[in-house]
Amino acid sequence: TAAAAAHPNHNKKHGKKSKLQVSLKTPKGTKDWADSDMVIREAIFSTLSNLFKRHGAVTIDTPVFELREILAGKYGEDSKLIYNLEDQGGELTSLRYDLTVPFARYVAMNNIQNIKRFHIAKVYRRDQPAMTKGRMREFYQCDIDFAGAYESMVPDAEILSVLVEGLTSLGIHDFKVKLNHRKILDGIFAIAGVAEEDVRKISSAVDKLDKQPWDVVKKEITVEKGQTEETANKIGEYVKLNGSLQEVYGILSQDEAILGNELAKQGLDDIKTLMGYADSFEISKFISFDLSLARGLDYYTGLIYEAVTEASAPPENAHELKKKSKSADDASEYVGVGSIAAGGRYDNLVNMFAQASGKKSAQIPCVGISFGVERLFSLIKQRTHLTDKIKPTATQVYVMAFGGGKDWTGYLPERMKVAKQLWNAGIETEYVYKAKANPRKQFDAAEKCGAPLAVILGKEEYLEGKLRIKRLGPEFADDDGELVDATNIVEAVQTKLGEV
Amino acid sequence: TAAAAAHPNHNKKHGKKSKLQVSLKTPKGTKDWADSDMVIREAIFSTLSNLFKRHGAVTIDTPVFELREILAGKYGEDSKLIYNLEDQGGELTSLRYDLTVPFARYVAMNNIQNIKRFHIAKVYRRDQPAMTKGRMREFYQCDIDFAGAYESMVPDAEILSVLVEGLTSLGIHDFKVKLNHRKILDGIFAIAGVAEEDVRKISSAVDKLDKQPWDVVKKEITVEKGQTEETANKIGEYVKLNGSLQEVYGILSQDEAILGNELAKQGLDDIKTLMGYADSFEISKFISFDLSLARGLDYYTGLIYEAVTEASAPPENAHELKKKSKSADDASEYVGVGSIAAGGRYDNLVNMFAQASGKKSAQIPCVGISFGVERLFSLIKQRTHLTDKIKPTATQVYVMAFGGGKDWTGYLPERMKVAKQLWNAGIETEYVYKAKANPRKQFDAAEKCGAPLAVILGKEEYLEGKLRIKRLGPEFADDDGELVDATNIVEAVQTKLGEV
Repeated sequence: TAAAAAHPNHNKKHGKKSKLQVSLKTPKGTKDWADSDMVIREAIFSTLSNLFKRHGAVTIDTPVFELREILAGKYGEDSKLIYNLEDQGGELTSLRYDLTVPFARYVAMNNIQNIKRFHIAKVYRRDQPAMTKGRMREFYQCDIDFAGAYESMVPDAEILSVLVEGLTSLGIHDFKVKLNHRKILDGIFAIAGVAEEDVRKISSAVDKLDKQPWDVVKKEITVEKGQTEETANKIGEYVKLNGSLQEVYGILSQDEAILGNELAKQGLDDIKTLMGYADSFEISKFISFDLSLARGLDYYTGLIYEAVTEASAPPENAHELKKKSKSADDASEYVGVGSIAAGGRYDNLVNMFAQASGKKSAQIPCVGISFGVERLFSLIKQRTHLTDKIKPTATQVYVMAFGGGKDWTGYLPERMKVAKQLWNAGIETEYVYKAKANPRKQFDAAEKCGAPLAVILGKEEYLEGKLRIKRLGPEFADDDGELVDATNIVEAVQTKLGEV
Repeated sequence: TAAAAAHPNHNKKHGKKSKLQVSLKTPKGTKDWADSDMVIREAIFSTLSNLFKRHGAVTIDTPVFELREILAGKYGEDSKLIYNLEDQGGELTSLRYDLTVPFARYVAMNNIQNIKRFHIAKVYRRDQPAMTKGRMREFYQCDIDFAGAYESMVPDAEILSVLVEGLTSLGIHDFKVKLNHRKILDGIFAIAGVAEEDVRKISSAVDKLDKQPWDVVKKEITVEKGQTEETANKIGEYVKLNGSLQEVYGILSQDEAILGNELAKQGLDDIKTLMGYADSFEISKFISFDLSLARGLDYYTGLIYEAVTEASAPPENAHELKKKSKSADDASEYVGVGSIAAGGRYDNLVNMFAQASGKKSAQIPCVGISFGVERLFSLIKQRTHLTDKIKPTATQVYVMAFGGGKDWTGYLPERMKVAKQLWNAGIETEYVYKAKANPRKQFDAAEKCGAPLAVILGKEEYLEGKLRIKRLGPEFADDDGELVDATNIVEAVQTKLGEV
């Protein structure tokens, strides 16, 4: 750990931690956000919330933990990554794994028929973290979901448009949206001879194709998961298909096996409808119809999609790096960023909650997308040098006092009074928390916080009811500023700030 | 539970929950925030963050859980209220109990010498919830803290000014700030004959004086906590004192016992210094110097304060109500809102972390205030009828199509294209997700989302390259709007929105 590294001798000497010893770190897979990083994060949040509002969505919030039974059976093999809270008496609860399941619970609980909602909040997964790639155990998701029974593929197409608009408005242009349809995929598994009860586990094997070559996945399908060589080969033929919506649709719509399978045929009809709407929204060029995309989560029932960039893929020699890696604390070396946004259609989740709670059946179809903030953050931070432009504080005015001599008080209470007047007028204002501060220290403090304006209480000038307003910054070094009446200070500062 | 109440017969019939039975609720003491509530909450957040920025603060974020050892020994008797995460292998962690301890950990870990930081985030306490009063197990705190060695009482006075500015800018004016000084209180305990090792537990007995009469507290001090009758009486004499800073200072500064106790004398000198600064900030009238205020937390070392309103106090017959209460799920009947903001000075917390982690000593004095959002929310919601004024969405434009006849397509892809143009221009736009929707349904949907403007694709007009822009709302019912060129739609909408 970081703390252990800071004093290795101490630890060696005692053999074990002394009673007082505390590791000064955040838990594995979590991090602090420093003020300069927060400026970038807030910019991402504000870009995405404005986008979501542009599409008519409202926002809600749900608790960070849910009753454990709410999360049970929703995440397939990944359920083992759920954080549980300790049983301290009372209900059994777990930290939310995503924002989708709490949303479906909310819709079912409140008998909502339709809603477009967005939710920006932290979720939790006990996964192998890769901190420098933005793969965390605590991370933010920015989700937008449309719930309600609508014309087929219309909300789906709009969500895909939101995905494209979101990434481009964050300055990310070199991405593609991998897209598939659960019904087509399930149809393929049926055609290949996978029994219905095995479909989800074969699906999660196929889902690994973005990290592992076909040979490894095939072995999982046959050796581990008991399918025949022939079944695996048939799956292999289909999942290697990818291209534009038009291209892959063209191939599948001439495939007798696909057309003869009811599920796959339904999926293919959806794709055809989508093709028109994707053109209306001018997003077709971003989409790669990729039959290898499976997505791990159990609850998807229709379209599934994820946005990837070059940084999403693991390095070529990931397998070797993983073997060599000694540290189990950070997987950054041998994994990629992963998808930077992902989602899909889930038509049964709300009803699952309605029925399980004894309410009457409520089939509320849903479709959504989730942006991964930490991954976007690590991309954006790599690409731009935003940090140089970040102003450390919002401070506009620094209140100072200049004077000297034996009777010099430093005008601290007087500086406070001036600051208070400016605060009351809504103006960001600071001053040095010191009775007598020399001019250099006050200028340094003003420069550090980036304030463009100083209000100066001169020893004699102040007694005459005057304050001095001066622009700050090297280009104004020789400018003495101007004297104004203390009674007009707020108006004078507002005017001057208007000119900055 | 709510779910059980919804289908009592079902539960009775089966005797116990069936396997599929799920309670459709949030965990005890937590709640969902619906969209209309979120508008109020966001307004509180934005008012407070603007206030904090006005005072030169930057924001940071820390994980929702911390290593368990970080939280250990910081909260006195309330430590039992900490939520632990289950030990699933790896580190032992707990949900944060406040934002102050994580802040001190952050300052120590990063060797920060001074910072003004604010943090708006959720904290967790396994307390008795009183939901309608805003006393929750998961709740938001809005904290601002100044860390750094500064002129005595200057940052303290500014934090008190932030407290007053915060509440008044939220429209809350009928509050008072109860204020005390840990050194004066500890001095009083010493004067009364409390041994040093008993001070904190006697202090937490005194802390209950806002909920319980002196008789009950006295019994706790003598019977439960083993102090003599004489000691308790002496404490009782002091803790009944309250009034303006001037008044109580006047009394204490003539008290030989106080003047003779070094700790108490130091505290009294601080109060004197504060009196001047409080006048500079014009906040004296809000302050009630109240020697019964103790605050439960262990880490305070100087000034302590909390803001209360009339709603803060429990009902007169709280004791009886509590006895009669059958439900252990919600204590709303017999408790008050409690303090709506609270804080104090803690000069040793950062150093405690620095030393315990083996770093060199780092005495970073801190002072801060924490606003309780849920309690403010419940006050604000009671007082105003903000909810009536809340616009459900940000939507500005509703795109519609009017037509009919056998060849009428409903112009869905065309509506999508128009919406996309408006989104690209940053304009909040919706349309009905239906191929053919009748005008009434489209107007209803537009009214529901509160959009002021409609863009209409008329069956013939659209073919001639024209779109109709129309103001929405009952006062424009007879206004047919105006026809514009489809190529100019963005500019035309922007102009029209400028007039709204």
